[in-house]
Amino acid sequence: MSSLQDQIHHIGKNARAASRALARLDSKTKNAVLVAMADELIVRLPDILEANAADVAEAEKNGLTKASIDRLRLNEKRVADMADGIRQVASLPDPVGEILRDWTQPSGIQLQKIRTPIGVIGIIYESRPNVTADAAVLCIKTGNAVILRGGSEALASNLAIAKALQAGGFNAGLPDYSVQLIPTKDREAVKIMAAMDQFMDVIIPRGGHSLIEAVVAAARMPVIKHYDGICHVFVDRAADHRMALDIALNAKCQRPGVCNAMETLLVHRDIASEFFQLASPELSKNQVELVADPAAHQILAALGYPKLREADESSFRTEWLDLILSVRIVETLAAAIDHIEIFGSHHSDAIVTNNEASAQEFLASVDSATVYWNASTRFTDGGEFGFGAEIGISTDKLHARGPMGLEELTTYKYLIRGNGQVRK
Amino acid sequence: MSSLQDQIHHIGKNARAASRALARLDSKTKNAVLVAMADELIVRLPDILEANAADVAEAEKNGLTKASIDRLRLNEKRVADMADGIRQVASLPDPVGEILRDWTQPSGIQLQKIRTPIGVIGIIYESRPNVTADAAVLCIKTGNAVILRGGSEALASNLAIAKALQAGGFNAGLPDYSVQLIPTKDREAVKIMAAMDQFMDVIIPRGGHSLIEAVVAAARMPVIKHYDGICHVFVDRAADHRMALDIALNAKCQRPGVCNAMETLLVHRDIASEFFQLASPELSKNQVELVADPAAHQILAALGYPKLREADESSFRTEWLDLILSVRIVETLAAAIDHIEIFGSHHSDAIVTNNEASAQEFLASVDSATVYWNASTRFTDGGEFGFGAEIGISTDKLHARGPMGLEELTTYKYLIRGNGQVRK
Repeated sequence: MSSLQDQIHHIGKNARAASRALARLDSKTKNAVLVAMADELIVRLPDILEANAADVAEAEKNGLTKASIDRLRLNEKRVADMADGIRQVASLPDPVGEILRDWTQPSGIQLQKIRTPIGVIGIIYESRPNVTADAAVLCIKTGNAVILRGGSEALASNLAIAKALQAGGFNAGLPDYSVQLIPTKDREAVKIMAAMDQFMDVIIPRGGHSLIEAVVAAARMPVIKHYDGICHVFVDRAADHRMALDIALNAKCQRPGVCNAMETLLVHRDIASEFFQLASPELSKNQVELVADPAAHQILAALGYPKLREADESSFRTEWLDLILSVRIVETLAAAIDHIEIFGSHHSDAIVTNNEASAQEFLASVDSATVYWNASTRFTDGGEFGFGAEIGISTDKLHARGPMGLEELTTYKYLIRGNGQVRK
Repeated sequence: MSSLQDQIHHIGKNARAASRALARLDSKTKNAVLVAMADELIVRLPDILEANAADVAEAEKNGLTKASIDRLRLNEKRVADMADGIRQVASLPDPVGEILRDWTQPSGIQLQKIRTPIGVIGIIYESRPNVTADAAVLCIKTGNAVILRGGSEALASNLAIAKALQAGGFNAGLPDYSVQLIPTKDREAVKIMAAMDQFMDVIIPRGGHSLIEAVVAAARMPVIKHYDGICHVFVDRAADHRMALDIALNAKCQRPGVCNAMETLLVHRDIASEFFQLASPELSKNQVELVADPAAHQILAALGYPKLREADESSFRTEWLDLILSVRIVETLAAAIDHIEIFGSHHSDAIVTNNEASAQEFLASVDSATVYWNASTRFTDGGEFGFGAEIGISTDKLHARGPMGLEELTTYKYLIRGNGQVRK
């Protein structure tokens, strides 16, 4: 047995023990813990910025991209935002203990289905050090112990943040080992975590495809995957063209690098010429490069669209995460639904139409976490859903689908009260 | 690529296609399909019994135990019971389409969280051929395609049952490939199924520890495990002794081979002598062998308990599934809770007490799917919970915990209706 495995199992064992104590904390204590964590982040601001400066210096030495370094960099404002985020989570209602159902059976036993913490949650993430605080506090709020594994380039920053959370929490009554961070850059740690189902109940990987793939391959416990999205907007023949264009522009351009941004625009052939006539000047003004199927390419080329190329087999399976958009003309609503089933990632897909029957057909048939009628896919977000906080957006179907808030970090158990009932 | 893999992937691909059509079937059609399946089982009774006779003959030749052969054997009554079970599922309410939540956000988008089928469910089971029908119809009722993999000793029986379900369903409008059975005894099939996450959404293994272990090791998709149970009854010092004994007798003796039977009896030291004086004649009358820790052993030996031996390290981790019972005396309520945490399997655990504070402490602290106060652990069952049907009892915490009925075979999606909303 490697000593890395020993070390990580030790972390797991301590987390399991902490989770039992955590599950019994009342809401008031948990909220006091969160506020103390936020306060301690501010107290330790100099330490955090110093650690972060070391990470940034090493990242620059290692030639990381400017965008990556920007994501990594902390400053006073970013740490203050982290602390504010924690205080906001403290102010949310506690889902633990909620009675989900309450009934009596003919045998006389009284049943309650109540919401409980899951136990120990592992979170594996990349890049932004603020996830260390965000993820930890959502777990603590829901009474779960958490084992964090951040990106190797942010290790010093993450350790400094975790230390602040631990110190603040400890003073306010947080059980030891409730929040732990894997203190190594060794990638083997991910596999060891994913395999220790004796100590962890679920693992949530947030990051690139290869990270998630590594977790899925090694996991012996439930994985709630946060794959990115290949999201579609379908402009039906009965669409309001202006509305369709506004939605498309928002879904593509407002923040192209996120998972709920549109990657493919599907347009009904009956209105394709007219729609592209309206759309192409504005898409072009927004610097969007179009990757078009032959039918759309013909129309767009005739309109003189400046940044245009032909789609190939892989285009419609590509998550551009950039100002690039796949475009395809479809013959029917059914063809649009089929395209989404075949090429999509079941994240967020929209239809724009004034025909209610077509909308209902789309809403019923598209098997995605979030299906839209006449709104932008960009609304797939815990905040926009009113969840108050979000640990991410699940692309899985089991346990949690779509934006994951506090409730999605809980499970349930049945409490049964009797007066001596035995089974006949 | 092996041809077995090709064959199973082909089954998976067809199931995925079927699941899309199935998800759109209305409740009336699904119920008609189920009734037609039940009818066809009766029509094909001779074929089913003939196939089963061949399985039984081979099992006898292979020297299977009498109990295994009894589980395998079908007769007219058992097939009729299967058909009745199907008709009962047809009469239950359809959970698909249920609106779980309905709200509007300040942005003006209207959100609905609605219950949907999961997609394609794989079920791996052993022994009893009736599971082929039971599991298939629960999946069809909830709009899921199902891939079944039964025990190799029941292959001919399972194929005959599946054929009847397919033929009956087809006549009533069931999409092709909605119910498929893996037609091979090759154990490799289990691994191939567990790895094909492109075609299956979840896999549910029901059977022995080694089967479940093989699935967990190979799985790339969520596994809802149905491990057996190490269930406890704790007789508190404030227990009604007669009630405690009745519950213990029921939990141990009524059906010792099932997962919700008690395996360990914990007794508070303050009342241990008195309780065992009452209990030992009745436990003895029921032929229960006791495996006792030193303190309990001393008392029971003094009482002349006939079938008594000393517990060792492994006794309290053993699922006897027989008229054998581990017995331990504990000093405190907290020690009982600790014992259950360390040695239990988080399935079903009970306290017998008249002290409400102790009961509340036990209910809150024991992290099991079902926690009882003054009732037998044998009630952990979909029927006893009023679910109408059950596909099994999950020992997992994610997605489904405890008895799994129809609702637990569904997921949800969000439908969002707007009038042109874009994200700010």
